[in-house]
Amino acid sequence: MATNLRIPGPTPVPPSVMDAMRREMIPHRGPDFKTLYLDTLRMAREAHRTDGDVLTWPASGSAGWEVAVVNLFSPGDPVLATICGDFGERFSRVATIFGLDVRELVVPWGQAVTPELLRNALARDPDVKGVFLTHNETSTGVTNPLPELAAIVREHGALVVVDSVSGVGGLPLEMDAWGVDFVLSGSQKAWMCPPGLLICAVGPRAWDAVARSAFPTFYWDLTANRRLAADGMTPTTPSLTLLYGFHTALERILDQGLEAVWDHHRRLGEFTRRGVTDLGLELFADPVYASNTVTGIMLPIDHSAKAIVKAVRDKFGVEIGAGQGKMADAMLRIGHMGWCDEAALQDTLDAIGSVLRARGFVPTRATVMASTS
Amino acid sequence: MATNLRIPGPTPVPPSVMDAMRREMIPHRGPDFKTLYLDTLRMAREAHRTDGDVLTWPASGSAGWEVAVVNLFSPGDPVLATICGDFGERFSRVATIFGLDVRELVVPWGQAVTPELLRNALARDPDVKGVFLTHNETSTGVTNPLPELAAIVREHGALVVVDSVSGVGGLPLEMDAWGVDFVLSGSQKAWMCPPGLLICAVGPRAWDAVARSAFPTFYWDLTANRRLAADGMTPTTPSLTLLYGFHTALERILDQGLEAVWDHHRRLGEFTRRGVTDLGLELFADPVYASNTVTGIMLPIDHSAKAIVKAVRDKFGVEIGAGQGKMADAMLRIGHMGWCDEAALQDTLDAIGSVLRARGFVPTRATVMASTS
Repeated sequence: MATNLRIPGPTPVPPSVMDAMRREMIPHRGPDFKTLYLDTLRMAREAHRTDGDVLTWPASGSAGWEVAVVNLFSPGDPVLATICGDFGERFSRVATIFGLDVRELVVPWGQAVTPELLRNALARDPDVKGVFLTHNETSTGVTNPLPELAAIVREHGALVVVDSVSGVGGLPLEMDAWGVDFVLSGSQKAWMCPPGLLICAVGPRAWDAVARSAFPTFYWDLTANRRLAADGMTPTTPSLTLLYGFHTALERILDQGLEAVWDHHRRLGEFTRRGVTDLGLELFADPVYASNTVTGIMLPIDHSAKAIVKAVRDKFGVEIGAGQGKMADAMLRIGHMGWCDEAALQDTLDAIGSVLRARGFVPTRATVMASTS
Repeated sequence: MATNLRIPGPTPVPPSVMDAMRREMIPHRGPDFKTLYLDTLRMAREAHRTDGDVLTWPASGSAGWEVAVVNLFSPGDPVLATICGDFGERFSRVATIFGLDVRELVVPWGQAVTPELLRNALARDPDVKGVFLTHNETSTGVTNPLPELAAIVREHGALVVVDSVSGVGGLPLEMDAWGVDFVLSGSQKAWMCPPGLLICAVGPRAWDAVARSAFPTFYWDLTANRRLAADGMTPTTPSLTLLYGFHTALERILDQGLEAVWDHHRRLGEFTRRGVTDLGLELFADPVYASNTVTGIMLPIDHSAKAIVKAVRDKFGVEIGAGQGKMADAMLRIGHMGWCDEAALQDTLDAIGSVLRARGFVPTRATVMASTS
């Protein structure tokens, strides 16, 4: 039985992408690679809705935090890290490791970073040169209001640096129209590929910042990467297999149309949230900002997330996520991005319901009320 | 027609490794991944002949230079970079970028770093804390005498830091017996996998150095990687597909036996060199140090390497390498590591001979004499 992989990444890889990855190795300085890579980057720009640069590295998505920090800033630079979950915390930690002067705007997990909170934070720390935003917080299932936040940061004159690992490719992202300067993501979420490819989109204001950065860089050197990418090459040996897959995944997304893909994710998000409340369970995220790629579920206090994840896996072959960080054992998470449909989500919800009922869970009046309201 | 891929990496991927990479995605914190990763690292230690740690990252092999520099040293530390080709030069450049105090031992391309040269260099620069050695210089086809060089560095009390990208898995490497402290490699050479996986082996003296390093690290943090690897986990999402492949490639290598694999490469190296001289062409490397994974061919002065590489590709479907750096248009390179046999090499030699003859190449008396002596 194939696993029903419903963790918030890695996500299932469609057969067409799997097949593309069977292509044999080719010289990475030869004409076939150049054609492949230039075409991949062209499609990736389209998928980010940007006329700027999109560049890739063999690396995890998390490396994108380091790429942003060491290319766009210098030691001691004041930045504002907005934090509404585990991944926002990590972005802040990376900036701290490299000696940026990090100010934090922290909101409770499950809540979003709102325009009002951001405006107040920037008023308190007017000197910040960049603001780190998490497009979609994978640890809580919250989508921050990126267009509004980006506009405020722009107005302030700081760089808009966005972790969109579980966003882009699934959630609306209009990089140029929204004034976003830097977007990082990984291949294994809405891009429907295996993990191992880092994708960074870089706009013109970000390039100005790169020119001013004092950090030493080699592997993450954005300028070297851009110079070679213009000619369909990479500074080090590229991850051919993952690029074969990414090329096919991008074709699939653009053939379907970005708006259609975003709409598909919106429907999957609504379907999942309705299913969760129908089970008598509580959604973790503020409903106004609930994510259409990841749903967080608050567990009743007498249940252990790890135990439920294991039971759902062992009994039903469904892989869901527990929480992260401080919420590790108190939350469940369902991923619904990339290659996913309602049937797979219904199976997932049924499996969670069955395991919880077998463990004595009875929806309380309050949760039933909420689900029917 | 399948390409006969005889560049010095990426190398062809055997069908068993390709098949392994079709495995579906799994949770990277789940029990199946832990089993896979612990087993992979166990086999990788065996393939390095070390009881130390072997760790991996989603990254190119070149990133290993940065991993070594920012984990084992501190800004201003004096190190000796030994350079006999393009990759040795790059290792030195990375150390310079990060502010190490780099002394260089440069030998002419085609020559090896000999024990005598190294001893003299260390006498001139007795304060160096580490020596960078290239096990096999991919740009020239030279294998440096690593056991002798490592012994001299050890005696001197400095760290033995080895780029073995085109060595380990094909050439003899006995990390612990030879006293090597750090070995970096990439998946796409003798490991027979696609590019995208960085492999670093770390011995006890290297760990002592890590504890003293003052560089900030996040993605390349060796200590964090080791702590999680002990439990079959990785600090960021691992490259599942490439690890599926690497696991199968290691099984294949260890099933065959390391000595048998090394012997196979020795035979392929001898076969290639004999074939090159039989064509009336000149080997680029000092014959005492000729590599058994990569053969460099000196081109007659009136031929362009780029033109010959293109003609060999277009007429025969064989992919060979031109030179690198200053030798870019003056040399050819044939890779014979990983999944390779005599038939593929004979086809390669035939193709090169045919293209050269069609372009008017006639072996001179000197080259014919050399080939029959």
